[in-house]
Amino acid sequence: MDSSIPPRSLGPVTPQRAAFAEPLPLRSGRTLAAYELVYETYGTLNAARSNAILVCHALNASHHVAGWYADDPQDVGWWDNIIGPGKPVDTDRFFVIGVNNLGGCFGSTGPMSIDPQTGQPYGSTFPVVTVEDWVAAQARLADHLGIERFAAVMGGSLGGMQALSWTRQFPDRLRHALVIACAPNLSAQNIAFNEVARQAILTDPDFHAGDYLAHGLTPVRGLRVARMVGHITYLSDDAMASKFGRQLRAGRIGYSFDPEFQIESYLGYQGGKFAEYFDANTYLRITKALDYFDPAFDFDGDLSASLANARAGFLVISFTTDWRFAPERSREIVQALLRNQLDVTYGEIDAPHGHDAFLLDDPRYHALVRAYLERVHGALA
Amino acid sequence: MDSSIPPRSLGPVTPQRAAFAEPLPLRSGRTLAAYELVYETYGTLNAARSNAILVCHALNASHHVAGWYADDPQDVGWWDNIIGPGKPVDTDRFFVIGVNNLGGCFGSTGPMSIDPQTGQPYGSTFPVVTVEDWVAAQARLADHLGIERFAAVMGGSLGGMQALSWTRQFPDRLRHALVIACAPNLSAQNIAFNEVARQAILTDPDFHAGDYLAHGLTPVRGLRVARMVGHITYLSDDAMASKFGRQLRAGRIGYSFDPEFQIESYLGYQGGKFAEYFDANTYLRITKALDYFDPAFDFDGDLSASLANARAGFLVISFTTDWRFAPERSREIVQALLRNQLDVTYGEIDAPHGHDAFLLDDPRYHALVRAYLERVHGALA
Repeated sequence: MDSSIPPRSLGPVTPQRAAFAEPLPLRSGRTLAAYELVYETYGTLNAARSNAILVCHALNASHHVAGWYADDPQDVGWWDNIIGPGKPVDTDRFFVIGVNNLGGCFGSTGPMSIDPQTGQPYGSTFPVVTVEDWVAAQARLADHLGIERFAAVMGGSLGGMQALSWTRQFPDRLRHALVIACAPNLSAQNIAFNEVARQAILTDPDFHAGDYLAHGLTPVRGLRVARMVGHITYLSDDAMASKFGRQLRAGRIGYSFDPEFQIESYLGYQGGKFAEYFDANTYLRITKALDYFDPAFDFDGDLSASLANARAGFLVISFTTDWRFAPERSREIVQALLRNQLDVTYGEIDAPHGHDAFLLDDPRYHALVRAYLERVHGALA
Repeated sequence: MDSSIPPRSLGPVTPQRAAFAEPLPLRSGRTLAAYELVYETYGTLNAARSNAILVCHALNASHHVAGWYADDPQDVGWWDNIIGPGKPVDTDRFFVIGVNNLGGCFGSTGPMSIDPQTGQPYGSTFPVVTVEDWVAAQARLADHLGIERFAAVMGGSLGGMQALSWTRQFPDRLRHALVIACAPNLSAQNIAFNEVARQAILTDPDFHAGDYLAHGLTPVRGLRVARMVGHITYLSDDAMASKFGRQLRAGRIGYSFDPEFQIESYLGYQGGKFAEYFDANTYLRITKALDYFDPAFDFDGDLSASLANARAGFLVISFTTDWRFAPERSREIVQALLRNQLDVTYGEIDAPHGHDAFLLDDPRYHALVRAYLERVHGALA
């Protein structure tokens, strides 16, 4: 990075759309006959087509990874703090791609899309999709863009699972994987929280077995509770304590069931906002994709064996106060990679924010990503 | 304890009922004109009336602390493993009292009771009650039983908060307090989990603003989700991992939204069972009592100052894997007591079970309670 030029925003960006006519076989045994993916790209693909980085999103994010929209400058990409000209993922050097995953609710084919066979929204009939299915669809997008091999695939949380899965499913199609705030699978406690969220949605009378759109409804109550419980797991206990503590909105106790503590208003606000824009069927499917992800499952629980064909270099990063995917879970990944004699850099960042730290602008974390990608760039053909 | 006689069950026990006609002023500013408390007693009150122990219950428990019911021998008291003849809380030595708290749903006056003024269930009109209100009502029960001073007041979790509050509200009416798996107040994260549970209930269409009984309904869906999220916080991550891990009920993934992992069935079963027997209005009020409890609130956050009048001896116990009320929260209590030069015994039990450990039969934990209460008994007048 030329230190005389400060990092800056990508400015306005525009989503694009690609249609795929070849049927996609899914892990569930079902097949998606045709589908579309919405994506964004930033920077320029070099002549050798060797400088592409794929950014995979987590639960509630999208293809809108960086920059902003000309018609809505407040709509800034979810990872804009790390991606852009002069930023750790430097779009002056790399061609960066964000894609909304299959089954999503931000433009790619998903439960809200019209099923061409019926002329109605897929709703409950949209298949359950997995991390492996997403990666397979992403690989077809790479074909579409003429990218044979990524310089890197990267993501945090569920996005990290996709990066990890790339190294198993398409070992020759990426040079590096950046696996951030991730785990090799969900713990019983992780699954339990997802199941609470799903039950809140599934038992909302407005859910109508997934066909709420056909009833002109959305299961707002269920989505709201689902997001509230999820949100608690993204923040560290300490971060909540220092941000909200036991602060009362009115300075005194009201002896009612209205939100009284600041943390209650905050969660209710976050939950309500989420319920306005996120699709319940997508939420159900994404949490299932999280629950199912388990590369070691077909290898008698041996994660090393599951990664035997991986060839990528790895940057694995965890955050000390992340109790959703604690550092020990990242170390399981690191150990499995090392047993395969792969090139692994591991950073455990002492950050107070919990799981959400991967989305935040921590200088040590960003410096690590920057340094790693500078090395990646230096070695590009 | 005579080591030749093994600890045994109390056998069949019978609940009793006491009616109180004197109005009870509540912290909320409201007054309960009259009320009844259901309680059980075990053992014999000695001539000096000095050997009584009050056991305070936590969120979902009741006055049925030990023994079983003649008409339902499976209905064993919730703390039967620690209370009985020859057990750590030895009913051959102590007169032990369990009481269902005001606002409860197991027989004491609460939201399900008939309001004599209307002839209808209180429902939404039942006041919000606090730990301090419960303790005040318990003190009247002590009057009723002719107990001027308890040998000890004890409880785990929310029960520990009541024991702690006794030492502030009625410092001369107890010799010892056993404060187990407790905290001096709820953290933002604790409150957040309670609020998720409340929102699940409050937004259940069958809740009808608290007057569901008048509609012939109960908010089963909300209660079920509330219990599921609560239950997660009672167990340690490790305990869930070792008990359930990622075990699948059918041995394979079904790509559906039915419970597939064992942890999902377990939580669903627990939630469903709870929703059958527990009252939603009681649940709302008990979680609020938890949220509100904060002895230091009126002392600028100074817990020591709030306990300046306490005179009891204390046994404080925490469990290493309890992440709901972690050992550091118990240590806050211990520090505040020591600053008041009170006599404190503190035990941090290395138990794998999380918050629920206080209900389980851990030999080191039970030995500590036994030893402490033997000392209490030896010093009785």
